[in-house]
Amino acid sequence: MKTVVLAALIGAAALPAFAQFQKPEDAIEYRQSVMTVMGHHFGHIGAMVNGKAPFDAAAAAKDADLVAMMAHLPWNAFGPGTDKGHDTAAKPEIWSDAAKFKAAADKTQDEAAKLATVAKGGKLDEIRVQFGATAKSCKACHDDFRKRT
Amino acid sequence: MKTVVLAALIGAAALPAFAQFQKPEDAIEYRQSVMTVMGHHFGHIGAMVNGKAPFDAAAAAKDADLVAMMAHLPWNAFGPGTDKGHDTAAKPEIWSDAAKFKAAADKTQDEAAKLATVAKGGKLDEIRVQFGATAKSCKACHDDFRKRT
Repeated sequence: MKTVVLAALIGAAALPAFAQFQKPEDAIEYRQSVMTVMGHHFGHIGAMVNGKAPFDAAAAAKDADLVAMMAHLPWNAFGPGTDKGHDTAAKPEIWSDAAKFKAAADKTQDEAAKLATVAKGGKLDEIRVQFGATAKSCKACHDDFRKRT
Repeated sequence: MKTVVLAALIGAAALPAFAQFQKPEDAIEYRQSVMTVMGHHFGHIGAMVNGKAPFDAAAAAKDADLVAMMAHLPWNAFGPGTDKGHDTAAKPEIWSDAAKFKAAADKTQDEAAKLATVAKGGKLDEIRVQFGATAKSCKACHDDFRKRT
């Protein structure tokens, strides 16, 4: 993965006003990075609710907060023209059925927000239920909008 | 970049208890992803303080919160054995001079936390100063511990 050049960030000389991303590949790398970080922390919770790792309520709450925060981020990086320019598993339906994609994205954000709330309660059984609901929303979006790799 | 396989996360059958990462490449991809996300939001703030984008106090505060949160994450992904297994710009000094690396990482976390606090104040001049201090801490760590790519 291309590393970020700090000097470019500090100077930001070439960054057009309002533009979130300078190039499609930047958007694709960003959204994939968000998914990687989100997936890692979601996986931590998954290991706990599936009995593969000891339950640590504080860690689960922190992971869930991170998941909820990250769940807001990727969607703006699916702008027009970001269907190519870098390896991507994004399906054309993201752009041809934008309303459905938005609904799926919103659903995941909502479920992740609920997971963060439930995780603060520290009850493993409740976390397991909401983890399942969140995972279902992730999978639904991936099934419709992500190519199998 | 390899995408995360959701089924593996949900099942997490192969995840050893306590292990943060199953394979060195997972740790490397995770820390690079964190840096990409952090760099993107830091770059947003940079564009504002450098006059390349209009100042939006609420957006700057949100970006700074994200930067501060992300600044806590990458360090655990530099565990033993994660010097190879995937393209990485990590220098051997991360492991041979771990105390210095930790100090540099701590410094960046501290500066990013201050940036988040300052950004909540909404004053562009103050944000610019603390953005500079944070950027300096990033650069110091990169100079010592990241290969030029």
